[in-house]
Amino acid sequence: MDNNVTNQRFSMLKQYHTDTLNKAIVEKKVDEILVPFLLEVVKIPDIFTSSSCAGRIMLLSTNEEESKKISSFHKKYHRTVSFEEIKRDIAQVSENDLWLKIESFIFHFGCKDYQKAKEVLSFSQEFGLKKAGIITAKDGKYILEITSTQFMALPVKVYDVVLISDDYLKLVLERANKKMEINFERLSRFSKSFLEKFK
Amino acid sequence: MDNNVTNQRFSMLKQYHTDTLNKAIVEKKVDEILVPFLLEVVKIPDIFTSSSCAGRIMLLSTNEEESKKISSFHKKYHRTVSFEEIKRDIAQVSENDLWLKIESFIFHFGCKDYQKAKEVLSFSQEFGLKKAGIITAKDGKYILEITSTQFMALPVKVYDVVLISDDYLKLVLERANKKMEINFERLSRFSKSFLEKFK
Repeated sequence: MDNNVTNQRFSMLKQYHTDTLNKAIVEKKVDEILVPFLLEVVKIPDIFTSSSCAGRIMLLSTNEEESKKISSFHKKYHRTVSFEEIKRDIAQVSENDLWLKIESFIFHFGCKDYQKAKEVLSFSQEFGLKKAGIITAKDGKYILEITSTQFMALPVKVYDVVLISDDYLKLVLERANKKMEINFERLSRFSKSFLEKFK
Repeated sequence: MDNNVTNQRFSMLKQYHTDTLNKAIVEKKVDEILVPFLLEVVKIPDIFTSSSCAGRIMLLSTNEEESKKISSFHKKYHRTVSFEEIKRDIAQVSENDLWLKIESFIFHFGCKDYQKAKEVLSFSQEFGLKKAGIITAKDGKYILEITSTQFMALPVKVYDVVLISDDYLKLVLERANKKMEINFERLSRFSKSFLEKFK
């Protein structure tokens, strides 16, 4: 593909994802903690972000096989959570399996060319993020997925039966909140270094 | 880098990883279920495998922060596990945190060139594996990491205190074994399709 077509494709993609981001910010659909960083990335000519998440604790309503089709979020918290809050939220649902999960922050970065994609990949790996890879590789469209490794996943309720004791839930939540703290500290360092390197 | 040097680097890498694989097979350090597939990949001229895992249920001895430095495997099972077996294995340790975890199969494929790496990436994504990416991109050394998404992770014991009831452990294990079955079925289909496509 010639350079002009490649440049044009990248510009269109960057414009599209910037519009989507701005709209999502207005509609408060972006994790607030990420907004300043994402807006700074917009200013970098040869990089954009598509979907991102700051990391979260969540309650997922699902079935025995965690089938995507029937799974839905009962609650998502992009922060630490208190025992009283999660106990109340677990009590609210009575369908299928209810799972408590933690996921680390995740970014999808679009890059103009292969060279830039390799730079972002190396930077992320040298930063210490083991889960970083180029997941789309086409002229004018290089997408990287970059994530961290803090996670938990366990069933807490099946139909109307809470399966775990208060003591166990307290311990799980202590570990979960600790993981969230580590996640946010790592996210903050990563965002700062990323801008220092690529802005 | 010129083609000869690139070819030479790839040949050396493929030879190194093939020797390592053969040695690991003799020493029974490779998941048995993977051996036939890995030996078939050896015959493909422009692809090799480095580390791989068939997927596993495991008991991880760790601390509150799951620090890598102090974490160690108490048990790994590359298969489904019975309640009696896991209950006995949980009873055996009394240090730090003990976590029960499940991880899906994971492959690292080395490819001779960027074109082949992109083909393996597209194939894996079209197969339905969302976690697939190019994690190393250098002339003569393209490595892909490809994994599935079945996982669980929960603390089961802190110091000498088992934190969960037998009923909960039974349910967790039922879910874990179901995930292992899905994992092995997917692994089997993936290996077969991979060889059909690239051999």
